[in-house]
Amino acid sequence: MIDSKQQFLNQSKEAKEFFLPHLSADTVVFGFDQNELKVLLLKMNYRKQWLLPGGYIAKDEDLDEAVVRILKDRAGVTGVYLEEFGVFGKKNRSEFYFEDFDETLFQKQRFITIGFYALYSASELHPIPDQFSETCEWVYLSQLPEIELAMDHREIIDKALLTLRERISIKPIGYNLLPEKFTLSELQKLYETILGKELNRGNFYRKIKNLGILKRLDEQRRGGAHKAPDLYSFDKENYKKALQNGLSNW
Amino acid sequence: MIDSKQQFLNQSKEAKEFFLPHLSADTVVFGFDQNELKVLLLKMNYRKQWLLPGGYIAKDEDLDEAVVRILKDRAGVTGVYLEEFGVFGKKNRSEFYFEDFDETLFQKQRFITIGFYALYSASELHPIPDQFSETCEWVYLSQLPEIELAMDHREIIDKALLTLRERISIKPIGYNLLPEKFTLSELQKLYETILGKELNRGNFYRKIKNLGILKRLDEQRRGGAHKAPDLYSFDKENYKKALQNGLSNW
Repeated sequence: MIDSKQQFLNQSKEAKEFFLPHLSADTVVFGFDQNELKVLLLKMNYRKQWLLPGGYIAKDEDLDEAVVRILKDRAGVTGVYLEEFGVFGKKNRSEFYFEDFDETLFQKQRFITIGFYALYSASELHPIPDQFSETCEWVYLSQLPEIELAMDHREIIDKALLTLRERISIKPIGYNLLPEKFTLSELQKLYETILGKELNRGNFYRKIKNLGILKRLDEQRRGGAHKAPDLYSFDKENYKKALQNGLSNW
Repeated sequence: MIDSKQQFLNQSKEAKEFFLPHLSADTVVFGFDQNELKVLLLKMNYRKQWLLPGGYIAKDEDLDEAVVRILKDRAGVTGVYLEEFGVFGKKNRSEFYFEDFDETLFQKQRFITIGFYALYSASELHPIPDQFSETCEWVYLSQLPEIELAMDHREIIDKALLTLRERISIKPIGYNLLPEKFTLSELQKLYETILGKELNRGNFYRKIKNLGILKRLDEQRRGGAHKAPDLYSFDKENYKKALQNGLSNW
């Protein structure tokens, strides 16, 4: 087995030929289950630290194409809609991670990284780690304090979460995070988790129904101790319209 | 006088030493008057096309520092709060602008540009063009179709406006765009201009007052044909709080 340092040296040689210097992209893929948000992370062979799936931009590749390829190459994930949420451009934000190498290593130069986030139904995603990683897996946000995240990747996750929180006020959310059929109480739980606060049940039900993005199904969730609650799904047509037009306070 | 081509050749030599390749930043500074939004543009000596104030990132400079310096260097503008709103990373988005030059020109390489926008009170800003520009001035958005904008700068302005429109649903707006004292009808006009639609007066007054960010002054706007309307100013403390906490629909 090639050791993890040798892997970086091999990558460096190729990278100099194919990729733009100084620019990278990192992806924050959020999932939701057990009433918690989680994020997709790689555990690197090198130093055993955790990292967001990220990579470089090819010289002849549009940025949008690059980030889709990066997520596929590094985590085996496809079919995800990615949205830019921030640029991380401080000096020395990543250089020190490669302190075991000399300055000729491609990966050790200064990189300004562009953050993209995506929402993904956890049950439909089967991550595959790349050659640089021991594993690629979901980590609950509540577990992040217990693991070692490399470089400024905690800051990048925090900014992605902040953006998601702002976006929930102007765009419908849930389509990629909930199963196809869900109860209103499950949808409320998702909103509460993202916003980080409890919502009044009556207000939430009224407002979410007023958006016109829900279809009540002729089915109930069976098995609980209480009266079986109605199941809902999203009205795809109206959901798409609401995404385009936004939900304005004004 | 040095011709505009020679200016670029001189800049190229220095740029290779000081700046990161492949990365640039562009600023979209919005102002508001005559019930219209306007944007700060440079008219370049070269080709007489209009451009957003933009530039490169020094090798030893944080991205945030770079964009502040760029706006100062190119337009003489200081003290503006800039916010990132998008990254423009298509191949060949800027290269063709320099078709009169050979490939060794620093400016002609592929650039991925990072967009920052700012809101600024038009009356307090006194733009000064740099050496590459004939003039630096406000152009009303309604005038944009009549002028020749270089590269993808129209797309960049459109994206900035879209972001501003989304942001108005989650953050208070107006502090940097209106004079210190204003009427509710002037504030409504600003919201209508950004949103691109008319708002119901009663609803707007009720909602904006509910935010708690306004102070009614003991003064009226004199001189109109109608009953003199009350003047307002922003309650700085509460405005700041609302900026931090956001205006949630939920």
